[in-house]
Amino acid sequence: MAGRMAHRLADLAGLVGGRVEGDPDREVEAVRTLEAAGPRDLSFLNHPRYRAEALASQAGALLVGQDLAAGLSVDLLVVKDTAFALSKILSLLHAAEAPEPGVHPTAVLEPGCVVDPTAWIGPYAVIGAGSSIAARAAVHAHVVVGRGCAVGEGAVLHPHAVLYPETEVGANTIVHAGVVLGADGFGYATSGGAHHKVPQVGRVVLESDVEIGANSAIDRATLGETRIGAGTKIDNLVQVGHNVRTGRHCILCGQAGIAGSTKLGDYVVLAGQAGVSGHIHLGDGAQVAAKSAALTSVEPRTQVAGIPAIELRRWRRQAVLISRLEEMSRRLRALERQLASSGQPLPEVPEEGRD
Amino acid sequence: MAGRMAHRLADLAGLVGGRVEGDPDREVEAVRTLEAAGPRDLSFLNHPRYRAEALASQAGALLVGQDLAAGLSVDLLVVKDTAFALSKILSLLHAAEAPEPGVHPTAVLEPGCVVDPTAWIGPYAVIGAGSSIAARAAVHAHVVVGRGCAVGEGAVLHPHAVLYPETEVGANTIVHAGVVLGADGFGYATSGGAHHKVPQVGRVVLESDVEIGANSAIDRATLGETRIGAGTKIDNLVQVGHNVRTGRHCILCGQAGIAGSTKLGDYVVLAGQAGVSGHIHLGDGAQVAAKSAALTSVEPRTQVAGIPAIELRRWRRQAVLISRLEEMSRRLRALERQLASSGQPLPEVPEEGRD
Amino acid sequence: MAGRMAHRLADLAGLVGGRVEGDPDREVEAVRTLEAAGPRDLSFLNHPRYRAEALASQAGALLVGQDLAAGLSVDLLVVKDTAFALSKILSLLHAAEAPEPGVHPTAVLEPGCVVDPTAWIGPYAVIGAGSSIAARAAVHAHVVVGRGCAVGEGAVLHPHAVLYPETEVGANTIVHAGVVLGADGFGYATSGGAHHKVPQVGRVVLESDVEIGANSAIDRATLGETRIGAGTKIDNLVQVGHNVRTGRHCILCGQAGIAGSTKLGDYVVLAGQAGVSGHIHLGDGAQVAAKSAALTSVEPRTQVAGIPAIELRRWRRQAVLISRLEEMSRRLRALERQLASSGQPLPEVPEEGRD
Repeated sequence: MAGRMAHRLADLAGLVGGRVEGDPDREVEAVRTLEAAGPRDLSFLNHPRYRAEALASQAGALLVGQDLAAGLSVDLLVVKDTAFALSKILSLLHAAEAPEPGVHPTAVLEPGCVVDPTAWIGPYAVIGAGSSIAARAAVHAHVVVGRGCAVGEGAVLHPHAVLYPETEVGANTIVHAGVVLGADGFGYATSGGAHHKVPQVGRVVLESDVEIGANSAIDRATLGETRIGAGTKIDNLVQVGHNVRTGRHCILCGQAGIAGSTKLGDYVVLAGQAGVSGHIHLGDGAQVAAKSAALTSVEPRTQVAGIPAIELRRWRRQAVLISRLEEMSRRLRALERQLASSGQPLPEVPEEGRD
Repeated sequence: MAGRMAHRLADLAGLVGGRVEGDPDREVEAVRTLEAAGPRDLSFLNHPRYRAEALASQAGALLVGQDLAAGLSVDLLVVKDTAFALSKILSLLHAAEAPEPGVHPTAVLEPGCVVDPTAWIGPYAVIGAGSSIAARAAVHAHVVVGRGCAVGEGAVLHPHAVLYPETEVGANTIVHAGVVLGADGFGYATSGGAHHKVPQVGRVVLESDVEIGANSAIDRATLGETRIGAGTKIDNLVQVGHNVRTGRHCILCGQAGIAGSTKLGDYVVLAGQAGVSGHIHLGDGAQVAAKSAALTSVEPRTQVAGIPAIELRRWRRQAVLISRLEEMSRRLRALERQLASSGQPLPEVPEEGRD
Repeated sequence: MAGRMAHRLADLAGLVGGRVEGDPDREVEAVRTLEAAGPRDLSFLNHPRYRAEALASQAGALLVGQDLAAGLSVDLLVVKDTAFALSKILSLLHAAEAPEPGVHPTAVLEPGCVVDPTAWIGPYAVIGAGSSIAARAAVHAHVVVGRGCAVGEGAVLHPHAVLYPETEVGANTIVHAGVVLGADGFGYATSGGAHHKVPQVGRVVLESDVEIGANSAIDRATLGETRIGAGTKIDNLVQVGHNVRTGRHCILCGQAGIAGSTKLGDYVVLAGQAGVSGHIHLGDGAQVAAKSAALTSVEPRTQVAGIPAIELRRWRRQAVLISRLEEMSRRLRALERQLASSGQPLPEVPEEGRD
């Protein structure tokens, strides 16, 4: 953490395509929260609810969206997209130290491995026979790479990630600790009262620029591939069944799950704890709400919610109607009393109403 | 992958109890998907929705159920149960290479271990004091077996599986990467404003022919045993609480969870992301639908769904009724208008309708 | 397990503030389940449903709540709080053997580590540069502690736990196998059709007396800290997003999840598979029911249930009303028939009822 470099606000504005309000020569060394920031720090305001904290902050400068800039008295870096600017500034000011290239003496390299000299292999990592680790890849402590795997340029495998044999990890893809890629899919043939394992002889392919969160599991295909498209981001504890294919730039939030053989288009979003049935298709840009279960295919650019998931708009209307059930029940009873008091004959109530 | 053996279709038919339509001497070496298969491959058709792909496939032969065989022009292997036949053929054509018996020089064997000479212990595995590893068992890289464990004949522990002390793994049971067996159950006594840990001094027993998916967790019992019955199959990221007992041949799909002290009979099925409360009983053959929560005991051979789970048939009817709430609301309003226009007196609407 | 010490019932009564009914000199050596206990064992009865098993048990003595003591003929240890007494007695009779202090020869200690001589570092553990391991801490086999971490006095890291750099683990905190602390939070800025990673440069702090269940994941903060308050207990496979802060003595049950930047007060309870949205606040003592999803903030001491979660009392009423929908539908139809038969004119039914 020592030895940070100072950056002029004007230089950061150049980096992110923003403008400075105040002193362009103001220098900052780090990004900190509004509470923690001091005069050599940049902090940020990205939502009106944090305005009071922003006004009270000791930050030397604030990164702020143009709609929230008014009324702030410190030096400002005003941008269109705070999150995007933050991602660039953090990458510059808080660049992770890349490990020195080389192979730790405790690492086990099985016969026929190819490890690029610019890659780093950490303590106790095991690289299986015939696997390749490309340039600038980082294989952290205790990672197990099975036989015949390929790890792409600049990819990062965090501690304790496990790649079963023949797994492929694309360039610049990040696999977090505890992730399991390529375990057997959950396939059995039930016969004679027992579940007989269907051997899972396919593999897992992660394309480039994918990120997989801690302790997630992506199963190998029965045959062929389970494939995660380029740029797709997967959060922690997510389950991806065998034969699944996701498109590019999907977002799978924490604890979401996809059953076997389902296909996702590009830019599909599964919110937290969402579930998706097997053998269905979610079109490009489809979104499944948190805690919801898509049991049938979803059209492109359609938001669904509920169990089973229906169109979000319909689900919202149903939720309102359910919240009014008590009132409906009262009104129904009132009508019955009104008719009873009017002396009209009570009709027969059918046992199994089909309405 | 090199050096596959060719197999005659007639021989495969003998293996799986099927019959050949076409050339019994047709040779295949591998099973591949309809898209990937070539003339030396067998592929399969198990659902009418894939008929077009089957017709376009370059596969040398197709495995097919007898109801789907008509109209296919390649050599066919016709069977009653495609999945079962596939499991047998894959086991033959794509047999996993068993590791050479022996103990990797980096493995740590604590005092009093017994490792059968036909077992394999991989790099950096740790076998705790007094544990036994039976014949033909495979303990992969980085597995940690605690003190006093027993791993049965032919069992497989994939990389990074962790067995806490005194865990027992039955014969031919498969434990996937990242699985944790025997961590402390979640038990506390709350007193004086703090949660005091109740020591968990029982253990976990997996019977024979069990399979546990990646990153699942099965807690040790408070006293006695948490036990998974023979032939039960558990998918990835499943949580099994302390003192749970499952019967034989249960199926627990991905991300399902069972709270403490619950008992499952034989052939119970939990679909994906299903939850089961603690201290209840699911009878033989009970099934809990995906995303559902069984909060009370379930009778044998009963399917339940919903939160809380009710009988599946009732849950389906309720779902239909909920989808008609908007229509019911309109009809109720129409009746009110009709009665209002008829000049009948409006009755008092009770505040808290008990209907 | 050999060489247990005998304890007089009277001495145990002194330990837990209970009283003996029967022979105060009765000796027990272990606690066992009602089924497994023999004459040298203590067992316990904590619920009337287990009375038959208690009467049939061979246990030498029973621990029992004062309301359940009547009618039992063996020697009894009668207490107010069975669970609390059990936690104390198990800690005495089944004390875990602490590993001998020292560093296993296969452990990797990077430069600048400080390991207290009373701590234990197991086989193949990796302790990153500049990290400190305090007195009596136990770092089990294959644990990876990143750079600049601090592990407190008496803390226990079970096998395969991973601490990313700068993580802090408080005194007497227990981290179970497969837990990942400090992986990157799930933060991206979407621009130009791609999701750009927002570097996560904060850290994770677990305060003292916390316990984290197997394979749970707690993400590092974007900036600042993700913090778990003292005495909070977290079950298996739980997901805690970046920037979350929990208060003291919270209970997070199995497979629960909390999205980013949410704050929990003290004594908050999330039941199994509950979910909590990002950027909200659950007040002190708030409780979210199993399988429920808190999408908005929850007031202190309030129980919520459902998706989205509403007050538990209201959710229960709605569940009852939903179960009566079939009956309501029949009654509505009956009213329509009654009015139709009475010859009153049918009113126009509005297409999109706003009631």
